[in-house]
Amino acid sequence: MQFRDSERLVHSLTEDQLTSYRAWLQYNPINQQDYREEIMHLLSTICVKDRNEVIDRALDELSFGLDQMIGYKPAVVRNEEDRSMLIIMIDPTYKAEMYTINLNSEKSMLRGGSSRAILYGVFHLLRLIQQQSKLTGLSIKEVPKNAIRMINQWDDMNGSVERGYAGESIFYKDYQFSKDRQRIYDYARLLSSVGINAITINNVNVHQIESKLITDTYLAEVKQTSDIFNQFGITLFLSINYAAPIEIGGLDSADPLDPKVRAFWKDIAQHVYEVVPNLGGFLVKADSENRPGPFTYGRNHAEGANMLAEAMEPYGGKVIWRCFVYNCKQDWRDRTTDRARAAYDHFMPLDGSFNDNVVLQIKNGPMDFQVREPVSPLIGGLEKTNQFLEFQIAQEYLGQQRHLVYLIPQWKEVLEFDTFAKGEGTTVKQIVSGDVFDNNISGIVAVSNIGNDYNWTGHTIAQLNLYGYGRLIWNPDLTAEEIALEWIKQTFGNHPTVIKLLMEIVMPSWETYENYTSPLGIGWMVNVNHHYGPNIDGYEYMAWGTYHFADRNGLGVDRTQETGTGYTSQYHQENQSLYEQVETCPDELLLFFHHVPYTHKLKSGKTVIQHIYDTHFQGVEQVQSMMEKWEALSSFMDAKRHQDVQERLNHQLENAKEWRDIINTYFYRKSGIADRHNRTIY
Amino acid sequence: MQFRDSERLVHSLTEDQLTSYRAWLQYNPINQQDYREEIMHLLSTICVKDRNEVIDRALDELSFGLDQMIGYKPAVVRNEEDRSMLIIMIDPTYKAEMYTINLNSEKSMLRGGSSRAILYGVFHLLRLIQQQSKLTGLSIKEVPKNAIRMINQWDDMNGSVERGYAGESIFYKDYQFSKDRQRIYDYARLLSSVGINAITINNVNVHQIESKLITDTYLAEVKQTSDIFNQFGITLFLSINYAAPIEIGGLDSADPLDPKVRAFWKDIAQHVYEVVPNLGGFLVKADSENRPGPFTYGRNHAEGANMLAEAMEPYGGKVIWRCFVYNCKQDWRDRTTDRARAAYDHFMPLDGSFNDNVVLQIKNGPMDFQVREPVSPLIGGLEKTNQFLEFQIAQEYLGQQRHLVYLIPQWKEVLEFDTFAKGEGTTVKQIVSGDVFDNNISGIVAVSNIGNDYNWTGHTIAQLNLYGYGRLIWNPDLTAEEIALEWIKQTFGNHPTVIKLLMEIVMPSWETYENYTSPLGIGWMVNVNHHYGPNIDGYEYMAWGTYHFADRNGLGVDRTQETGTGYTSQYHQENQSLYEQVETCPDELLLFFHHVPYTHKLKSGKTVIQHIYDTHFQGVEQVQSMMEKWEALSSFMDAKRHQDVQERLNHQLENAKEWRDIINTYFYRKSGIADRHNRTIY
Repeated sequence: MQFRDSERLVHSLTEDQLTSYRAWLQYNPINQQDYREEIMHLLSTICVKDRNEVIDRALDELSFGLDQMIGYKPAVVRNEEDRSMLIIMIDPTYKAEMYTINLNSEKSMLRGGSSRAILYGVFHLLRLIQQQSKLTGLSIKEVPKNAIRMINQWDDMNGSVERGYAGESIFYKDYQFSKDRQRIYDYARLLSSVGINAITINNVNVHQIESKLITDTYLAEVKQTSDIFNQFGITLFLSINYAAPIEIGGLDSADPLDPKVRAFWKDIAQHVYEVVPNLGGFLVKADSENRPGPFTYGRNHAEGANMLAEAMEPYGGKVIWRCFVYNCKQDWRDRTTDRARAAYDHFMPLDGSFNDNVVLQIKNGPMDFQVREPVSPLIGGLEKTNQFLEFQIAQEYLGQQRHLVYLIPQWKEVLEFDTFAKGEGTTVKQIVSGDVFDNNISGIVAVSNIGNDYNWTGHTIAQLNLYGYGRLIWNPDLTAEEIALEWIKQTFGNHPTVIKLLMEIVMPSWETYENYTSPLGIGWMVNVNHHYGPNIDGYEYMAWGTYHFADRNGLGVDRTQETGTGYTSQYHQENQSLYEQVETCPDELLLFFHHVPYTHKLKSGKTVIQHIYDTHFQGVEQVQSMMEKWEALSSFMDAKRHQDVQERLNHQLENAKEWRDIINTYFYRKSGIADRHNRTIY
Repeated sequence: MQFRDSERLVHSLTEDQLTSYRAWLQYNPINQQDYREEIMHLLSTICVKDRNEVIDRALDELSFGLDQMIGYKPAVVRNEEDRSMLIIMIDPTYKAEMYTINLNSEKSMLRGGSSRAILYGVFHLLRLIQQQSKLTGLSIKEVPKNAIRMINQWDDMNGSVERGYAGESIFYKDYQFSKDRQRIYDYARLLSSVGINAITINNVNVHQIESKLITDTYLAEVKQTSDIFNQFGITLFLSINYAAPIEIGGLDSADPLDPKVRAFWKDIAQHVYEVVPNLGGFLVKADSENRPGPFTYGRNHAEGANMLAEAMEPYGGKVIWRCFVYNCKQDWRDRTTDRARAAYDHFMPLDGSFNDNVVLQIKNGPMDFQVREPVSPLIGGLEKTNQFLEFQIAQEYLGQQRHLVYLIPQWKEVLEFDTFAKGEGTTVKQIVSGDVFDNNISGIVAVSNIGNDYNWTGHTIAQLNLYGYGRLIWNPDLTAEEIALEWIKQTFGNHPTVIKLLMEIVMPSWETYENYTSPLGIGWMVNVNHHYGPNIDGYEYMAWGTYHFADRNGLGVDRTQETGTGYTSQYHQENQSLYEQVETCPDELLLFFHHVPYTHKLKSGKTVIQHIYDTHFQGVEQVQSMMEKWEALSSFMDAKRHQDVQERLNHQLENAKEWRDIINTYFYRKSGIADRHNRTIY
């Protein structure tokens, strides 16, 4: 298959859409003469001894980037010569993904532990050049903190994307693999530019047709797709249907202890690896939201996962097992069941019973990607089990890429959270990297936010979340500010006004969204199923376990051990105490852990009801301020991207007002307590 | 086209489905010897002078019915002879749809004002025989109260039925007319058996493809369908798209005063009547729920309708214009707009300005087919305008044919409602029959509840609503009990236990449904869009104008002139006073007209909140009682129909409990007032 390396742009886009499509790899021409000369001097010639398709991608990228930005293509030679050059080489003493860059006017080196590491190094160089950073004297050593840095696509083969807010799937159309492989190639390039090294290409909810991805119906095309990603150092995984023995195998059971079922999966694994030898493994969502699983046969999840793991083990295949297991048919009238407890209750007793090539995938919070949740107690709970932390880049509950929300600040809080698993300082980022419990598989995964929209992510600023995800999980010590800053410079340029205004727009955007949506960690209050827009009682009387229990006196879920569901007991002692007591529980999670009266005083000194009113009025004002700042940016970028974001901001403002007015009215009607400032409540 | 007159059953049905399919035309064998002999004596020979296809259908039916029930086919002769016989003849001195039946052992007569009237007379006879009524000495004179007795199908050409709860369309599939015309033939027969004489065959929401029903793309098949209905005395109408001049005419406007638009419709009318000479006319939903209309061009609805009426007038075509016009994009924050006012506000000023062949179609209530609404004030308001009253047989808001609800008691209340338009006793049934204001077009129309389910209506007992609709609008003086009784006997036989239990099941079923759903006339509180199941705040913060305004102190919509939206002013003085004062407003409509505290005392002596609790517990108990009675009927009917209904009752009970618990919990949480009887509220 031939891809347009030098242009890398799908043909169907108009010129003004291309700017959006390029995302953070704008490679705009740099006019500053001395900087151009510095680069031309440092990187006039590239010497590469090792060649393979990944290194070819690195050289293509370097050549393309320099051509675009500086206006020349470097010479590429195989042997060192006397003149100044950048020597690129694989250093077998390095860790696989580690690279070092040392640049000086005599002899410069880019060494990597693997071809993949060299590719990352090249993208690193280009990132610096886009930001016009000084390169002479540069000395860098980079090792990713997390070994597996993964993206989950929730794409269905009918072409739709579950929780997709950026058009249709780039992978499938009408139950076939998409003909436009260029788009996949371009996506792989974008991902590798921020260090992603693994991907699943089909939805965790594996429907009938998608169950056949592991059969000859589709395997040849899976291989083609794997090949594309492999060129960019990305390993492909597949989501599988746990009921495949029945649905495609013709068996009458999917019982993991049934010899016929075990034989089925062994055969599948063998054949899949014959056709797709580089496959990373399988991702499984079992016994969740009506998906079949081992529970159907009275088996536990270790039995369920290990059976698959045995089948995959001969080929080095991994089994990623999602912990999003809960009883989604609970009765709202039953107050004893607490969905937040489910993952921990299910998986903690199994700690230590999973095979070495199994890894549990754990959502960041115990519920489901809400605007604010505590960290899942499984992280720090599990000590003898491989684990992935799962984020969602798709803004399912955070405005669905119609609202501008920068997610990294949220994820930073998760990663910096102290679990106290091995005493103070046992942060989530230390655990999921595998360092604390010496896991042999570890990493972070996230649900993608891209589709076939010309700007990939629907909202142009949502590109930042994809970019930031990659950068953050490579190095969780980066701050949200650092990440935003480098993205802004690459995407919109280095002008101080652009940087100032965009930083002011993106940095408070998560807090802004939280302000005008559901308050104090209670979550939900969204429209049922599609999860967009306010609907306070939307889930209140449904079977999904997502309640606020607001009555005329107060609201919140009592998850204490003393009087509630006992969820707090799932944390280590320090956090148990923190959350158990109303007095110490952080305000922003108060209603997640406690049912309190509207007149309860927060640490801020405000009552809960006044906090609700204040944050909701404030949130709308913040959106208005965001819009003013964006308006002021119009002369600093192309009209298309400016207008795209502006239209979304207009909608965001209207929707934020809807949130404000419905939340305020709802709680005013329930509490009967007037706003201290007499603002309009309907 | 050949139809199976003798069997009339679609081939794809199994034997046990056929019983359901036969609906109330079971024609079960009658074993009672003396009754059989009486019938055989009275009806051994039929003498018919006039023959045409409608009379052929009557003779077919008579022959089929007698063969099934009594076991013989009568002789049919052209001339009177000496022996005893039933003489069937058209009597030109009769009103068109009037018929008389006189039966005695010498010479019996069935005279009708038209072939259609004779068909009705034959169905009348068969109805009596099914009920084993004594026929000797029978002397009947029947004239329908309403001239036009119409059914509206909300079928779309993709095969779906909007608000259809009984399978797919019997008319269309995949944007083509259905191949199975037998099913349409059988439907026409069922409708004529209860006196229906008009039908629209496509949804009032006319989409892109359906706009072409008035073009050569589909007109030949419209004609074929019209021919089928004509055989049963039923006139076919079409719903049209007011924007057709643009969508199919290639014009840039649909302005009714634009000469090009007028020419377009004149051409359409001419051509349509060339191909379908018996077409009754057009039905139009304009300026409603996003449908285009005259408002788009600054014209009023009289200008809009009259333009069409002029085009149709040369062919005797009617224009039926729906009054379901309201601003469906109102803002929930705006308390001054009242959707209930909309139809009256729009159409009253136009009274007298519509052409003679225009008729306004008015929903029974001002909102939208809720479980309880006051009667639309347009009925009794309009004095110089033709009008149809519109009911909905489809149970959109009344349990969607999963709940057993007998609708005739509701419609009886509407028809017996005193508008005081010309002083006391000016009931709705007098007005809509055309008698009060001497309208030249008048009648009643209803949205159908049938689909291609083998029992037509999803819920077997929902057949009663279709049957009862026809019978009631033929003769609005029939009681709900009379109608139920004759339906039960025909559908399930004459056994006293069957009659007793089924009467006890159906008669209180509307009240039962009302008890466990939204209280005291407030309506709505259903899930958004699909309108099934409880969702108290579902519409509360939306743009549809359907609010309950419940807060911690009380609930209801203030529609008084004194302090509210002034909706009560749309009624004549006596009803204005009745509704305006809390003291006189009937309990069952209290919250439709007034916002009252939970502690408000009803005429029953109970508080509003206690009434809510009591009716909701009671409603569920009533469903349980209904189930017990149905259980006791198992040996009195075929297993299939018994099981079908039982399964639905099981679901109804679960859903009724859901309604009970959610309503009670919601209002308990809001009011904080405990149930006096300490029953379980969650």
